[in-house]
Amino acid sequence: MPSFAERLHAASQKADSLLCVGLDPDPQLMPVKDVAAFQRAIIEATHDLACAFKPNLAFYEALGAEGHQLLRQAVDLIHAHGVLAIGDAKRGDVEHTARFHAKALVDEYNFDAVTVNPYLGRDSLRPFLEREGRGVFVLCRTSNPGAADLQSLLCLYAGETRPLYQVVALKAKEWDEGGNVGLVVGATQPEELRQVRALCPSLPLLVPGVGAQGGDLEQAVRYGVDAHGGGLLVNTSRQVLYASKGTDYAEAARSVAQEVRGRINRVRSTLT
Amino acid sequence: MPSFAERLHAASQKADSLLCVGLDPDPQLMPVKDVAAFQRAIIEATHDLACAFKPNLAFYEALGAEGHQLLRQAVDLIHAHGVLAIGDAKRGDVEHTARFHAKALVDEYNFDAVTVNPYLGRDSLRPFLEREGRGVFVLCRTSNPGAADLQSLLCLYAGETRPLYQVVALKAKEWDEGGNVGLVVGATQPEELRQVRALCPSLPLLVPGVGAQGGDLEQAVRYGVDAHGGGLLVNTSRQVLYASKGTDYAEAARSVAQEVRGRINRVRSTLT
Repeated sequence: MPSFAERLHAASQKADSLLCVGLDPDPQLMPVKDVAAFQRAIIEATHDLACAFKPNLAFYEALGAEGHQLLRQAVDLIHAHGVLAIGDAKRGDVEHTARFHAKALVDEYNFDAVTVNPYLGRDSLRPFLEREGRGVFVLCRTSNPGAADLQSLLCLYAGETRPLYQVVALKAKEWDEGGNVGLVVGATQPEELRQVRALCPSLPLLVPGVGAQGGDLEQAVRYGVDAHGGGLLVNTSRQVLYASKGTDYAEAARSVAQEVRGRINRVRSTLT
Repeated sequence: MPSFAERLHAASQKADSLLCVGLDPDPQLMPVKDVAAFQRAIIEATHDLACAFKPNLAFYEALGAEGHQLLRQAVDLIHAHGVLAIGDAKRGDVEHTARFHAKALVDEYNFDAVTVNPYLGRDSLRPFLEREGRGVFVLCRTSNPGAADLQSLLCLYAGETRPLYQVVALKAKEWDEGGNVGLVVGATQPEELRQVRALCPSLPLLVPGVGAQGGDLEQAVRYGVDAHGGGLLVNTSRQVLYASKGTDYAEAARSVAQEVRGRINRVRSTLT
């Protein structure tokens, strides 16, 4: 079976895209009340432009009991179009409990990869890493202002002094078992993104924070791609999902997704 | 309205107990198939011996669609007995997303406190801290073997070199806004527990890891209590829940909970 990194590469080649569309169904922002219809319309309008969708579990959990069914529906629809589904769950727990997370997220929901928090260390990732062909994206440098509180702390590691996020990057490289570990690095910190790419030349990077959070798209691509112009997922959520408040929201989403994919590919074409 | 720390103190005094019973409904270990009946029996058999119950969300999520309803049931039952409910969710996300976590966990499920991961920094906790009378327990030193991977890294902070978990303890003390922040410190590392209590004399500590994970109960109490012999929640899950495989499981759970509460109180009586 191909590794998660190989599957990601194939999906990216097929769509000629590094775009990841985040699914954050927010009742306050959705142009329609019916979440099932909304996510179906978004997925159908953008699936050929994206190599992955990233449902954010917090938004589904906030929908109550029906959130569970809606999330299953989203993953099934994404897979029906041959696109990867990344569960943005930011999980991290002792191994005994992490087994239940992996069971729910990978075995039940069928996510291809899951975002995880590194604070509990390697054994907290093991239940995810054991599942063939699946992957994790380890939080490394997040896109929020508070990220610096811990992630920028200077640490003594392997005879050097480095910020914690760089130690996480180096550890993730160690933890990778042949293409199943990637990193989350926010576009709001382009210099940190460049550093992480330098430390981990071949790990896939998931980069949120362009669009609503203000990260620069061109810099994210320039600093985030690997030596082959790939290995990168640029995520955009609100910018695509809520491109229009009218009944044309799916077309508007498609047109934003198309524009973002085009801008990403223009930067790639100048690099190779 | 009293702060979370004050509510915890009152619940602890009422039950003369520092015991927290973790609810980890595992279909492979439960003596009966009916989760609703199981958790009701456990809560009814032990509520007067505990100052809090701690449902672990991973186990409920792994139960699929009905997990949502079961978790609501659990919190309602716990509250009906006047005991506190701590959602063991280990959440941590950018503030925009954390608002949805707080909405789901505090407003919908009605948890009195939630466990949170510090890796994303202070702003990721803000939506929880804004809710009056509620609290968070910040992961500080966890009970798993991999905890040392990051938590023991030496960091430069405020002119000193300290392991990361101690920096988290100091930051949590800063983040506390009058009784709404506590820490999670595993009983498997008694020396670290002692250090955390020394750095944070008055933050409530939630201590998992006694029982199945092998932490020493007497040391956890000796090192974990504050100057008044309180401010501590000693959690036990599997040891109570799965005390018997027979139809007497609720009585067996009560008898283990009684024994653990007694052992905790005996240590407390030697300290004050």
